[in-house]
Amino acid sequence: MSDKRPLIFVTNDDGITAKGIRSLYDAVKSLGDVVLIAPDSPQSGTGHAITIHDPIRMTQSLAFEIEDAFSCSGTPVDCVKLGVYEVMHRKPDLLVSGINHGANTATNVLYSGTMSAAVEGSMEGIPSVGFSLCSFDQDADFSIAKEVVTNVSKHILMNGLEDGVCLNVNVPYVAIEDYKGIKVCRQAHAYWEDRFDKRLDQFNKPYYWLTGEFRDQEQAEDTDLYWIEKGFTTIVPTKFDMTAFDSLNKIKNWEL
Amino acid sequence: MSDKRPLIFVTNDDGITAKGIRSLYDAVKSLGDVVLIAPDSPQSGTGHAITIHDPIRMTQSLAFEIEDAFSCSGTPVDCVKLGVYEVMHRKPDLLVSGINHGANTATNVLYSGTMSAAVEGSMEGIPSVGFSLCSFDQDADFSIAKEVVTNVSKHILMNGLEDGVCLNVNVPYVAIEDYKGIKVCRQAHAYWEDRFDKRLDQFNKPYYWLTGEFRDQEQAEDTDLYWIEKGFTTIVPTKFDMTAFDSLNKIKNWEL
Repeated sequence: MSDKRPLIFVTNDDGITAKGIRSLYDAVKSLGDVVLIAPDSPQSGTGHAITIHDPIRMTQSLAFEIEDAFSCSGTPVDCVKLGVYEVMHRKPDLLVSGINHGANTATNVLYSGTMSAAVEGSMEGIPSVGFSLCSFDQDADFSIAKEVVTNVSKHILMNGLEDGVCLNVNVPYVAIEDYKGIKVCRQAHAYWEDRFDKRLDQFNKPYYWLTGEFRDQEQAEDTDLYWIEKGFTTIVPTKFDMTAFDSLNKIKNWEL
Repeated sequence: MSDKRPLIFVTNDDGITAKGIRSLYDAVKSLGDVVLIAPDSPQSGTGHAITIHDPIRMTQSLAFEIEDAFSCSGTPVDCVKLGVYEVMHRKPDLLVSGINHGANTATNVLYSGTMSAAVEGSMEGIPSVGFSLCSFDQDADFSIAKEVVTNVSKHILMNGLEDGVCLNVNVPYVAIEDYKGIKVCRQAHAYWEDRFDKRLDQFNKPYYWLTGEFRDQEQAEDTDLYWIEKGFTTIVPTKFDMTAFDSLNKIKNWEL
Protein backbone atom coordinates (compact mmCIF):
# COMPACT_ATOMS: atom_id res chain seq x y z
CA MET A 1 0.00 0.00 0.00
CA SER A 2 1.35 3.44 -0.84
CA ASP A 3 1.25 6.38 1.54
CA LYS A 4 -1.71 7.72 -0.36
CA ARG A 5 -5.17 6.73 0.81
CA PRO A 6 -6.29 3.81 -1.38
CA LEU A 7 -8.77 4.52 -4.16
CA ILE A 8 -11.59 1.98 -4.10
CA PHE A 9 -14.04 1.39 -6.96
CA VAL A 10 -17.44 0.04 -5.90
CA THR A 11 -19.96 -1.46 -8.33
CA ASN A 12 -22.58 -4.23 -8.60
CA ASP A 13 -25.18 -5.80 -10.89
CA ASP A 14 -28.32 -5.60 -8.75
CA GLY A 15 -28.47 -1.86 -9.28
CA ILE A 16 -27.65 1.20 -7.22
CA THR A 17 -30.69 0.89 -4.94
CA ALA A 18 -29.91 -2.67 -3.76
CA LYS A 19 -29.16 -3.32 -0.12
CA GLY A 20 -26.10 -5.32 -1.24
CA ILE A 21 -24.20 -2.35 -2.65
CA ARG A 22 -25.04 -0.22 0.36
CA SER A 23 -23.59 -2.99 2.57
CA LEU A 24 -20.53 -3.21 0.33
CA TYR A 25 -20.01 0.54 0.48
CA ASP A 26 -20.36 0.55 4.28
CA ALA A 27 -17.83 -2.28 4.57
CA VAL A 28 -15.06 -0.56 2.57
CA LYS A 29 -15.61 3.18 3.09
CA SER A 30 -13.18 3.38 6.01
CA LEU A 31 -10.43 1.71 3.95
CA GLY A 32 -9.99 4.47 1.39
CA ASP A 33 -11.59 7.01 -0.95
CA VAL A 34 -14.56 5.49 -2.69
CA VAL A 35 -15.87 6.01 -6.22
CA LEU A 36 -19.18 4.23 -6.79
CA ILE A 37 -20.72 3.58 -10.22
CA ALA A 38 -23.60 1.13 -10.46
CA PRO A 39 -26.38 0.26 -12.91
CA ASP A 40 -29.60 2.25 -12.54
CA SER A 41 -31.64 -0.97 -12.72
CA PRO A 42 -31.15 -4.65 -11.86
CA GLN A 43 -28.77 -6.38 -14.30
CA SER A 44 -28.60 -9.94 -12.99
CA GLY A 45 -27.49 -12.39 -15.65
CA THR A 46 -25.98 -9.81 -17.97
CA GLY A 47 -22.61 -11.59 -17.84
CA HIS A 48 -19.82 -9.74 -19.61
CA ALA A 49 -22.19 -7.76 -21.85
CA ILE A 50 -21.17 -4.29 -23.02
CA THR A 51 -23.32 -1.60 -24.62
CA ILE A 52 -22.23 -0.96 -28.19
CA HIS A 53 -25.36 0.00 -30.13
CA ASP A 54 -26.92 2.37 -27.61
CA PRO A 55 -25.67 5.49 -25.89
CA ILE A 56 -24.95 5.20 -22.16
CA ARG A 57 -26.21 7.66 -19.55
CA MET A 58 -24.49 8.38 -16.26
CA THR A 59 -25.85 10.69 -13.57
CA GLN A 60 -24.73 11.61 -10.08
CA SER A 61 -26.50 9.76 -7.30
CA LEU A 62 -27.29 11.44 -4.00
CA ALA A 63 -27.95 8.16 -2.22
CA PHE A 64 -24.42 7.94 -0.78
CA GLU A 65 -22.49 10.44 1.31
CA ILE A 66 -19.85 10.92 -1.36
CA GLU A 67 -19.63 13.15 -4.41
CA ASP A 68 -18.34 10.38 -6.65
CA ALA A 69 -21.43 8.17 -6.75
CA PHE A 70 -23.06 7.62 -10.13
CA SER A 71 -25.97 5.70 -11.52
CA CYS A 72 -25.48 4.36 -15.04
CA SER A 73 -27.81 3.05 -17.74
CA GLY A 74 -25.23 0.48 -18.90
CA THR A 75 -24.17 -2.96 -17.78
CA PRO A 76 -21.82 -3.70 -14.87
CA VAL A 77 -18.91 -3.98 -17.34
CA ASP A 78 -19.90 -0.61 -18.85
CA CYS A 79 -19.77 0.84 -15.32
CA VAL A 80 -16.20 -0.42 -14.90
CA LYS A 81 -15.10 0.98 -18.26
CA LEU A 82 -16.75 4.37 -17.57
CA GLY A 83 -15.14 4.50 -14.15
CA VAL A 84 -11.66 3.76 -15.45
CA TYR A 85 -11.75 5.89 -18.60
CA GLU A 86 -14.11 8.77 -17.74
CA VAL A 87 -14.42 9.25 -13.99
CA MET A 88 -11.18 8.32 -12.25
CA HIS A 89 -7.98 10.21 -12.65
CA ARG A 90 -5.79 7.34 -11.51
CA LYS A 91 -6.05 3.56 -11.49
CA PRO A 92 -7.96 2.35 -8.42
CA ASP A 93 -6.12 0.20 -5.88
CA LEU A 94 -9.11 -2.10 -5.47
CA LEU A 95 -12.36 -2.86 -7.27
CA VAL A 96 -15.14 -4.48 -5.25
CA SER A 97 -18.37 -5.69 -6.87
CA GLY A 98 -21.57 -6.77 -5.12
CA ILE A 99 -22.60 -7.74 -2.58
CA ASN A 100 -24.73 -9.82 -4.91
CA HIS A 101 -28.16 -10.96 -3.76
CA GLY A 102 -27.72 -14.67 -4.55
CA ALA A 103 -24.83 -17.09 -5.03
CA ASN A 104 -22.32 -16.83 -7.87
CA THR A 105 -20.67 -20.16 -7.22
CA ALA A 106 -19.48 -22.64 -9.87
CA THR A 107 -20.28 -21.87 -13.52
CA ASN A 108 -22.52 -18.98 -12.46
CA VAL A 109 -19.35 -16.91 -12.68
CA LEU A 110 -20.04 -16.78 -16.45
CA TYR A 111 -23.62 -15.47 -16.18
CA SER A 112 -22.93 -13.11 -13.31
CA GLY A 113 -22.76 -9.37 -13.91
CA THR A 114 -21.21 -9.01 -10.45
CA MET A 115 -18.31 -11.29 -11.33
CA SER A 116 -18.00 -9.93 -14.88
CA ALA A 117 -17.37 -6.48 -13.38
CA ALA A 118 -14.57 -8.00 -11.29
CA VAL A 119 -13.15 -9.87 -14.30
CA GLU A 120 -13.23 -6.63 -16.31
CA GLY A 121 -11.41 -4.90 -13.46
CA SER A 122 -8.66 -7.51 -13.62
CA MET A 123 -8.43 -7.02 -17.40
CA GLU A 124 -7.76 -3.35 -16.63
CA GLY A 125 -5.00 -4.32 -14.21
CA ILE A 126 -7.00 -3.49 -11.07
CA PRO A 127 -6.96 -5.95 -8.12
CA SER A 128 -10.63 -6.93 -8.20
CA VAL A 129 -13.08 -9.05 -6.26
CA GLY A 130 -16.76 -9.97 -6.54
CA PHE A 131 -18.79 -10.73 -3.38
CA SER A 132 -22.06 -12.66 -3.28
CA LEU A 133 -24.36 -13.68 -0.47
CA CYS A 134 -26.29 -16.94 -0.88
CA SER A 135 -29.69 -15.35 -0.40
CA PHE A 136 -31.97 -13.76 -2.96
CA ASP A 137 -33.87 -11.96 -0.19
CA GLN A 138 -33.94 -8.22 -0.95
CA ASP A 139 -33.72 -7.51 2.75
CA ALA A 140 -31.17 -10.23 3.61
CA ASP A 141 -28.88 -9.89 6.63
CA PHE A 142 -25.49 -8.83 5.27
CA SER A 143 -23.62 -8.72 8.60
CA ILE A 144 -21.35 -11.78 8.04
CA ALA A 145 -20.83 -10.77 4.40
CA LYS A 146 -19.74 -7.26 5.43
CA GLU A 147 -17.07 -8.68 7.73
CA VAL A 148 -15.83 -10.90 4.90
CA VAL A 149 -15.69 -7.86 2.58
CA THR A 150 -13.58 -5.84 5.01
CA ASN A 151 -11.28 -8.79 5.75
CA VAL A 152 -10.66 -9.78 2.11
CA SER A 153 -10.36 -6.17 0.92
CA LYS A 154 -7.68 -5.42 3.52
CA HIS A 155 -5.71 -8.49 2.37
CA ILE A 156 -5.91 -7.45 -1.28
CA LEU A 157 -4.81 -3.90 -0.47
CA MET A 158 -1.90 -5.40 1.45
CA ASN A 159 -0.87 -8.30 -0.82
CA GLY A 160 -2.24 -7.36 -4.22
CA LEU A 161 -3.34 -10.04 -6.67
CA GLU A 162 -1.47 -11.69 -9.51
CA ASP A 163 -1.88 -10.25 -12.99
CA GLY A 164 -4.97 -11.56 -14.72
CA VAL A 165 -6.51 -12.94 -11.53
CA CYS A 166 -9.53 -11.69 -9.56
CA LEU A 167 -11.42 -13.30 -6.69
CA ASN A 168 -14.90 -14.81 -6.62
CA VAL A 169 -16.12 -14.71 -3.00
CA ASN A 170 -19.37 -16.38 -1.93
CA VAL A 171 -20.72 -16.09 1.60
CA PRO A 172 -23.17 -18.72 2.92
CA TYR A 173 -26.47 -17.50 4.32
CA VAL A 174 -26.28 -19.02 7.78
CA ALA A 175 -26.71 -17.89 11.37
CA ILE A 176 -23.47 -16.65 12.94
CA GLU A 177 -23.21 -19.73 15.18
CA ASP A 178 -23.27 -22.00 12.11
CA TYR A 179 -20.67 -20.00 10.18
CA LYS A 180 -17.43 -21.94 9.73
CA GLY A 181 -14.85 -19.56 8.21
CA ILE A 182 -13.15 -19.20 4.81
CA LYS A 183 -11.93 -21.76 2.24
CA VAL A 184 -9.86 -21.02 -0.86
CA CYS A 185 -10.90 -23.55 -3.51
CA ARG A 186 -11.72 -24.18 -7.16
CA GLN A 187 -14.84 -23.55 -9.26
CA ALA A 188 -17.22 -26.52 -9.26
CA HIS A 189 -18.38 -27.96 -12.56
CA ALA A 190 -22.10 -27.51 -12.41
CA TYR A 191 -24.79 -26.51 -14.86
CA TRP A 192 -28.33 -25.24 -15.04
CA GLU A 193 -30.88 -27.81 -15.98
CA ASP A 194 -33.05 -25.22 -17.61
CA ARG A 195 -36.75 -25.28 -18.07
CA PHE A 196 -38.83 -22.80 -19.97
CA ASP A 197 -42.23 -21.83 -18.70
CA LYS A 198 -44.19 -21.56 -21.97
CA ARG A 199 -47.26 -19.30 -21.76
CA LEU A 200 -49.69 -17.70 -24.17
CA ASP A 201 -50.16 -13.94 -24.36
CA GLN A 202 -53.41 -12.02 -24.92
CA PHE A 203 -53.19 -12.75 -28.66
CA ASN A 204 -52.61 -16.47 -28.07
CA LYS A 205 -48.98 -16.19 -29.10
CA PRO A 206 -46.38 -18.11 -27.08
CA TYR A 207 -43.67 -16.61 -24.91
CA TYR A 208 -41.08 -18.20 -22.66
CA TRP A 209 -39.73 -17.53 -19.18
CA LEU A 210 -36.36 -18.97 -18.31
CA THR A 211 -36.33 -21.05 -15.15
CA GLY A 212 -34.52 -24.18 -14.01
CA GLU A 213 -32.47 -25.92 -11.37
CA PHE A 214 -28.77 -25.77 -10.66
CA ARG A 215 -27.06 -29.17 -10.66
CA ASP A 216 -23.69 -30.04 -9.19
CA GLN A 217 -22.22 -32.31 -11.86
CA GLU A 218 -19.21 -33.50 -9.89
CA GLN A 219 -20.17 -33.68 -6.23
CA ALA A 220 -16.40 -33.27 -5.77
CA GLU A 221 -14.52 -32.04 -2.71
CA ASP A 222 -12.56 -28.81 -2.62
CA THR A 223 -14.99 -26.92 -4.85
CA ASP A 224 -16.96 -23.80 -3.99
CA LEU A 225 -20.24 -25.74 -4.03
CA TYR A 226 -18.80 -28.32 -1.64
CA TRP A 227 -17.59 -25.84 0.98
CA ILE A 228 -20.45 -23.37 0.81
CA GLU A 229 -22.85 -26.22 1.65
CA LYS A 230 -20.77 -26.85 4.77
CA GLY A 231 -21.13 -23.25 5.98
CA PHE A 232 -17.85 -21.80 4.69
CA THR A 233 -17.23 -18.63 2.69
CA THR A 234 -15.52 -19.70 -0.55
CA ILE A 235 -12.83 -17.81 -2.46
CA VAL A 236 -12.08 -18.94 -6.01
CA PRO A 237 -9.17 -17.19 -7.74
CA THR A 238 -10.59 -16.54 -11.21
CA LYS A 239 -8.80 -15.72 -14.46
CA PHE A 240 -9.87 -14.36 -17.82
CA ASP A 241 -7.52 -16.58 -19.80
CA MET A 242 -9.96 -19.29 -20.87
CA THR A 243 -7.41 -21.31 -22.87
CA ALA A 244 -7.82 -25.04 -22.22
CA PHE A 245 -4.08 -25.69 -22.10
CA ASP A 246 -4.59 -29.42 -21.48
CA SER A 247 -6.33 -29.76 -24.84
CA LEU A 248 -3.76 -27.88 -26.93
CA ASN A 249 -1.62 -30.87 -27.88
CA LYS A 250 -4.54 -33.16 -28.56
CA ILE A 251 -6.02 -30.73 -31.07
CA LYS A 252 -2.61 -29.95 -32.57
CA ASN A 253 -2.57 -33.65 -33.57
CA TRP A 254 -5.69 -33.30 -35.70
CA GLU A 255 -4.76 -33.28 -39.38
CA LEU A 256 -6.47 -30.02 -40.18
CA MET B 1 -20.03 -40.74 -35.24
CA SER B 2 -23.09 -42.93 -34.86
CA ASP B 3 -25.02 -44.43 -37.79
CA LYS B 4 -27.61 -41.74 -37.38
CA ARG B 5 -27.20 -38.54 -39.36
CA PRO B 6 -25.57 -35.99 -37.06
CA LEU B 7 -27.77 -33.31 -35.50
CA ILE B 8 -26.17 -29.88 -35.90
CA PHE B 9 -27.21 -26.77 -33.96
CA VAL B 10 -26.50 -23.47 -35.74
CA THR B 11 -26.60 -20.09 -33.99
CA ASN B 12 -24.85 -16.70 -33.96
CA ASP B 13 -24.84 -13.25 -32.36
CA ASP B 14 -25.11 -10.98 -35.40
CA GLY B 15 -28.73 -12.00 -35.88
CA ILE B 16 -30.60 -14.29 -38.21
CA THR B 17 -30.34 -11.98 -41.23
CA ALA B 18 -26.51 -11.75 -41.18
CA LYS B 19 -24.51 -13.09 -44.09
CA GLY B 20 -22.29 -14.90 -41.58
CA ILE B 21 -24.97 -17.31 -40.37
CA ARG B 22 -26.12 -18.02 -43.93
CA SER B 23 -22.50 -18.91 -44.78
CA LEU B 24 -22.26 -21.08 -41.66
CA TYR B 25 -25.49 -22.87 -42.52
CA ASP B 26 -24.31 -23.48 -46.09
CA ALA B 27 -20.99 -24.86 -44.83
CA VAL B 28 -22.53 -27.48 -42.50
CA LYS B 29 -25.89 -28.40 -44.07
CA SER B 30 -24.48 -31.38 -45.96
CA LEU B 31 -22.94 -32.81 -42.77
CA GLY B 32 -26.21 -33.53 -40.96
CA ASP B 33 -29.68 -32.39 -39.98
CA VAL B 34 -29.64 -28.75 -39.00
CA VAL B 35 -31.62 -26.88 -36.35
CA LEU B 36 -31.05 -23.12 -36.50
CA ILE B 37 -31.99 -20.68 -33.74
CA ALA B 38 -30.59 -17.16 -33.90
CA PRO B 39 -31.33 -13.75 -32.37
CA ASP B 40 -33.83 -11.59 -34.26
CA SER B 41 -31.49 -8.59 -34.00
CA PRO B 42 -27.73 -7.98 -33.73
CA GLN B 43 -26.36 -8.95 -30.30
CA SER B 44 -22.66 -8.20 -30.58
CA GLY B 45 -21.05 -7.71 -27.20
CA THR B 46 -23.78 -9.44 -25.21
CA GLY B 47 -21.25 -11.89 -23.76
CA HIS B 48 -22.80 -14.64 -21.68
CA ALA B 49 -25.96 -12.63 -20.90
CA ILE B 50 -29.24 -14.46 -20.33
CA THR B 51 -32.75 -13.03 -20.24
CA ILE B 52 -34.25 -13.39 -16.77
CA HIS B 53 -36.57 -10.40 -16.28
CA ASP B 54 -38.27 -10.41 -19.68
CA PRO B 55 -40.22 -13.03 -21.59
CA ILE B 56 -38.53 -14.51 -24.67
CA ARG B 57 -40.23 -14.84 -28.06
CA MET B 58 -39.33 -17.46 -30.66
CA THR B 59 -40.89 -17.67 -34.11
CA GLN B 60 -40.26 -19.85 -37.13
CA SER B 61 -38.11 -18.26 -39.82
CA LEU B 62 -38.76 -18.93 -43.49
CA ALA B 63 -35.35 -17.63 -44.53
CA PHE B 64 -33.76 -21.10 -44.61
CA GLU B 65 -34.84 -24.22 -46.48
CA ILE B 66 -35.48 -26.15 -43.28
CA GLU B 67 -38.45 -26.38 -40.98
CA ASP B 68 -36.36 -26.04 -37.81
CA ALA B 69 -35.19 -22.45 -38.24
CA PHE B 70 -36.24 -19.96 -35.58
CA SER B 71 -35.70 -16.32 -34.82
CA CYS B 72 -35.53 -15.47 -31.12
CA SER B 73 -35.84 -12.24 -29.13
CA GLY B 74 -33.23 -13.42 -26.60
CA THR B 75 -29.46 -13.45 -26.42
CA PRO B 76 -27.21 -16.04 -28.12
CA VAL B 77 -27.03 -17.98 -24.83
CA ASP B 78 -30.86 -17.89 -24.58
CA CYS B 79 -30.96 -19.36 -28.11
CA VAL B 80 -28.77 -22.27 -27.00
CA LYS B 81 -30.89 -22.93 -23.91
CA LEU B 82 -34.15 -22.76 -25.90
CA GLY B 83 -32.72 -25.10 -28.52
CA VAL B 84 -31.59 -27.69 -26.00
CA TYR B 85 -34.58 -27.58 -23.67
CA GLU B 86 -37.52 -26.64 -25.91
CA VAL B 87 -36.79 -27.42 -29.56
CA MET B 88 -34.54 -30.47 -29.85
CA HIS B 89 -35.57 -33.95 -28.86
CA ARG B 90 -32.02 -35.21 -28.48
CA LYS B 91 -28.65 -33.68 -27.69
CA PRO B 92 -27.02 -32.26 -30.84
CA ASP B 93 -23.75 -33.82 -32.02
CA LEU B 94 -22.29 -30.41 -32.83
CA LEU B 95 -23.02 -26.77 -32.08
CA VAL B 96 -21.60 -24.16 -34.47
CA SER B 97 -21.87 -20.43 -33.78
CA GLY B 98 -21.12 -17.58 -36.17
CA ILE B 99 -19.66 -16.94 -38.60
CA ASN B 100 -19.09 -13.72 -36.69
CA HIS B 101 -18.54 -10.49 -38.60
CA GLY B 102 -15.34 -9.41 -36.84
CA ALA B 103 -12.54 -11.10 -34.86
CA ASN B 104 -13.09 -12.77 -31.50
CA THR B 105 -9.43 -13.28 -30.73
CA ALA B 106 -7.77 -12.86 -27.33
CA THR B 107 -9.87 -11.52 -24.45
CA ASN B 108 -12.72 -10.74 -26.86
CA VAL B 109 -13.86 -14.27 -26.09
CA LEU B 110 -15.42 -12.78 -22.94
CA TYR B 111 -17.43 -10.05 -24.69
CA SER B 112 -18.44 -12.18 -27.65
CA GLY B 113 -21.99 -13.48 -27.95
CA THR B 114 -20.76 -15.85 -30.67
CA MET B 115 -18.25 -17.48 -28.34
CA SER B 116 -20.59 -17.37 -25.33
CA ALA B 117 -23.06 -19.49 -27.32
CA ALA B 118 -20.26 -22.01 -27.92
CA VAL B 119 -19.21 -21.93 -24.26
CA GLU B 120 -22.84 -22.48 -23.23
CA GLY B 121 -23.00 -25.42 -25.65
CA SER B 122 -19.97 -26.98 -23.96
CA MET B 123 -21.63 -26.44 -20.56
CA GLU B 124 -24.54 -28.50 -21.92
CA GLY B 125 -22.14 -31.25 -22.96
CA ILE B 126 -22.35 -30.48 -26.70
CA PRO B 127 -19.13 -30.39 -28.77
CA SER B 128 -19.20 -26.71 -29.68
CA VAL B 129 -17.25 -24.23 -31.76
CA GLY B 130 -17.46 -20.52 -32.52
CA PHE B 131 -16.25 -19.16 -35.88
CA SER B 132 -15.28 -15.56 -36.59
CA LEU B 133 -14.00 -13.81 -39.69
CA CYS B 134 -11.68 -10.83 -39.18
CA SER B 135 -13.84 -8.39 -41.12
CA PHE B 136 -16.73 -6.24 -39.94
CA ASP B 137 -17.92 -5.83 -43.53
CA GLN B 138 -21.58 -6.86 -43.75
CA ASP B 139 -20.93 -8.22 -47.23
CA ALA B 140 -17.52 -9.79 -46.50
CA ASP B 141 -16.24 -12.72 -48.58
CA PHE B 142 -16.79 -15.84 -46.46
CA SER B 143 -15.29 -18.37 -48.88
CA ILE B 144 -12.14 -19.25 -46.89
CA ALA B 145 -14.13 -19.18 -43.65
CA LYS B 146 -16.68 -21.64 -45.07
CA GLU B 147 -13.95 -24.13 -45.92
CA VAL B 148 -12.57 -23.79 -42.40
CA VAL B 149 -16.04 -24.41 -40.96
CA THR B 150 -16.55 -27.60 -42.97
CA ASN B 151 -13.04 -28.85 -42.16
CA VAL B 152 -13.19 -28.19 -38.40
CA SER B 153 -16.79 -29.42 -38.10
CA LYS B 154 -15.91 -32.74 -39.73
CA HIS B 155 -13.02 -33.20 -37.31
CA ILE B 156 -15.21 -32.49 -34.30
CA LEU B 157 -17.89 -34.91 -35.53
CA MET B 158 -15.16 -37.51 -35.94
CA ASN B 159 -13.01 -36.88 -32.84
CA GLY B 160 -15.35 -35.13 -30.43
CA LEU B 161 -14.02 -32.63 -27.91
CA GLU B 162 -12.99 -33.06 -24.31
CA ASP B 163 -15.57 -32.36 -21.61
CA GLY B 164 -15.75 -28.68 -20.74
CA VAL B 165 -13.82 -27.57 -23.83
CA CYS B 166 -15.06 -25.74 -26.92
CA LEU B 167 -13.11 -24.17 -29.79
CA ASN B 168 -12.61 -20.51 -30.65
CA VAL B 169 -11.80 -20.31 -34.37
CA ASN B 170 -10.77 -17.05 -36.04
CA VAL B 171 -10.20 -16.77 -39.77
CA PRO B 172 -8.00 -13.96 -41.15
CA TYR B 173 -9.48 -11.72 -43.84
CA VAL B 174 -6.91 -12.23 -46.57
CA ALA B 175 -6.86 -13.12 -50.25
CA ILE B 176 -6.64 -16.84 -50.89
CA GLU B 177 -3.03 -16.58 -52.11
CA ASP B 178 -2.00 -14.98 -48.78
CA TYR B 179 -3.80 -17.56 -46.64
CA LYS B 180 -1.37 -19.73 -44.67
CA GLY B 181 -3.38 -22.51 -43.00
CA ILE B 182 -4.38 -23.35 -39.42
CA LYS B 183 -2.60 -22.97 -36.06
CA VAL B 184 -3.77 -24.33 -32.72
CA CYS B 185 -2.63 -21.88 -30.04
CA ARG B 186 -3.48 -20.04 -26.84
CA GLN B 187 -5.55 -16.92 -26.10
CA ALA B 188 -3.46 -13.73 -26.20
CA HIS B 189 -3.56 -11.39 -23.22
CA ALA B 190 -4.88 -8.22 -24.71
CA TYR B 191 -7.27 -5.52 -23.60
CA TRP B 192 -9.40 -2.69 -24.94
CA GLU B 193 -8.02 0.73 -24.33
CA ASP B 194 -11.47 2.21 -24.18
CA ARG B 195 -12.51 5.68 -24.99
CA PHE B 196 -15.92 7.21 -24.54
CA ASP B 197 -17.25 9.64 -27.06
CA LYS B 198 -19.09 12.12 -24.81
CA ARG B 199 -21.85 14.08 -26.54
CA LEU B 200 -24.73 16.31 -25.54
CA ASP B 201 -28.32 15.48 -26.42
CA GLN B 202 -31.10 17.91 -27.47
CA PHE B 203 -31.61 18.87 -23.80
CA ASN B 204 -27.91 19.48 -23.25
CA LYS B 205 -27.57 16.32 -21.16
CA PRO B 206 -24.48 14.14 -21.69
CA TYR B 207 -24.43 10.64 -23.13
CA TYR B 208 -21.56 8.31 -23.94
CA TRP B 209 -20.68 6.00 -26.84
CA LEU B 210 -18.22 3.23 -26.15
CA THR B 211 -15.27 3.16 -28.51
CA GLY B 212 -11.58 2.32 -28.20
CA GLU B 213 -8.62 0.40 -29.51
CA PHE B 214 -7.56 -3.17 -28.96
CA ARG B 215 -4.05 -3.56 -27.56
CA ASP B 216 -1.91 -6.69 -27.54
CA GLN B 217 -0.37 -6.60 -24.10
CA GLU B 218 2.14 -9.38 -24.58
CA GLN B 219 3.30 -9.33 -28.20
CA ALA B 220 4.04 -12.99 -27.47
CA GLU B 221 4.42 -15.86 -29.92
CA ASP B 222 2.04 -18.79 -30.13
CA THR B 223 -1.04 -16.68 -29.37
CA ASP B 224 -4.10 -16.19 -31.58
CA LEU B 225 -3.19 -12.52 -32.16
CA TYR B 226 0.31 -13.52 -33.25
CA TRP B 227 -0.75 -16.12 -35.83
CA ILE B 228 -3.78 -14.33 -37.21
CA GLU B 229 -1.54 -11.38 -38.10
CA LYS B 230 0.60 -13.79 -40.09
CA GLY B 231 -2.35 -15.01 -42.19
CA PHE B 232 -3.26 -18.17 -40.25
CA THR B 233 -6.63 -19.34 -38.99
CA THR B 234 -6.31 -19.75 -35.21
CA ILE B 235 -7.97 -22.37 -33.03
CA VAL B 236 -7.95 -21.78 -29.28
CA PRO B 237 -9.36 -24.62 -27.15
CA THR B 238 -11.47 -22.72 -24.62
CA LYS B 239 -12.86 -23.83 -21.25
CA PHE B 240 -15.49 -22.50 -18.88
CA ASP B 241 -13.55 -23.41 -15.77
CA MET B 242 -12.06 -20.00 -14.95
CA THR B 243 -10.24 -21.13 -11.78
CA ALA B 244 -6.75 -19.63 -11.61
CA PHE B 245 -5.17 -22.84 -10.32
CA ASP B 246 -1.70 -21.26 -10.15
CA SER B 247 -2.97 -18.74 -7.59
CA LEU B 248 -4.73 -21.22 -5.28
CA ASN B 249 -1.80 -21.91 -2.99
CA LYS B 250 -0.67 -18.32 -2.78
CA ILE B 251 -4.09 -17.20 -1.57
CA LYS B 252 -4.43 -20.20 0.75
CA ASN B 253 -1.41 -18.73 2.55
CA TRP B 254 -3.21 -15.50 3.38
CA GLU B 255 -4.24 -15.47 7.04
CA LEU B 256 -7.90 -14.84 6.41
